[in-house]
Amino acid sequence: MKRRGHDPESVLRIAVGVFNERGYDGTSMEDLARALGVTKSAIYYHVPGKEQLLGRVLDVALDGLFTMIADPRASTGRAITRLEWVVRQSVTILVDRLPYVKVLLRVHGNSPTETRALERRREFDRFISALVKEAAGDGDLRPDIDPSLATRLLFGTVNSIAEWYQPARGASADQLADAVLKLTFNGLRVP
Amino acid sequence: MKRRGHDPESVLRIAVGVFNERGYDGTSMEDLARALGVTKSAIYYHVPGKEQLLGRVLDVALDGLFTMIADPRASTGRAITRLEWVVRQSVTILVDRLPYVKVLLRVHGNSPTETRALERRREFDRFISALVKEAAGDGDLRPDIDPSLATRLLFGTVNSIAEWYQPARGASADQLADAVLKLTFNGLRVP
Repeated sequence: MKRRGHDPESVLRIAVGVFNERGYDGTSMEDLARALGVTKSAIYYHVPGKEQLLGRVLDVALDGLFTMIADPRASTGRAITRLEWVVRQSVTILVDRLPYVKVLLRVHGNSPTETRALERRREFDRFISALVKEAAGDGDLRPDIDPSLATRLLFGTVNSIAEWYQPARGASADQLADAVLKLTFNGLRVP
Repeated sequence: MKRRGHDPESVLRIAVGVFNERGYDGTSMEDLARALGVTKSAIYYHVPGKEQLLGRVLDVALDGLFTMIADPRASTGRAITRLEWVVRQSVTILVDRLPYVKVLLRVHGNSPTETRALERRREFDRFISALVKEAAGDGDLRPDIDPSLATRLLFGTVNSIAEWYQPARGASADQLADAVLKLTFNGLRVP
């Protein structure tokens, strides 16, 4: 019988599951070998190392965000419209790439790979923060919340979805995005 | 010279710092002894064990929340007013007990102590969820967001503060609570 093969995508998909289950720091190369169904020595044929694998996992999440903000819809038109589009897309990316985003949200900068990911996250945050400031400058956002604080709360709301969302049941990405946009832009209260 | 003494409060305050720095799973009794400035054998004079210490840390966070919802202001008056009060108090508790709440938010149920804490968190969530449903039933909350989803997003916004808040600089607990209430109940958009 032919030995089970793994392409890079399936290695990554299995690894991100193990990282989320055991925590990245709690995952050993042996855990990864077991999950892939290969021997401990064969794992190095598939994966140069744990940190390199983490780098690829983080790139899946971050590349999604950076592809989004490179889209013309993130840079053309009224700032508040762009901001709403970016928030909607962020929810969609979070749902589509949930295990990858979960790993990203837990990164604390304990290695060069994590530091680089944090630097990219900060770059993304600066883009959002500039967009919030521009929308506030247009008079479209209430002036009595500091734009930096608004940015943090807005993306805090989006990212908190990763804590509880289960793809198999409940709201779809679109319904979730609708709810997030209504709550953050219009509020829960009936006017 | 008399050996440095530790009362239970200072042990807890130091331990919660170590838990947040190293992660609970990554913390050894040796790490705790080092942080307390006692020998590895003396640590058991101060602390029966790591899990018992975790239990006390989680109780500091959870007791704050349960004391709050036992207050008459959480059970008397119009539901939306009670809900707003509860959200404001939750932000205050999070800021006042930040390191304890951070440990609580990272608990995943890996031990009886964690399972008990998660059960208490769920009890708190049920209280909030009932309050949101009551306010929606009064016609005070927009009917086009499911109350369970509204509850998750509302507390997702509150809890996300723990990810970035630094007590020494930036907004006070009151300013933060104001911003959270404005964003979640009235929205960022200028009407």
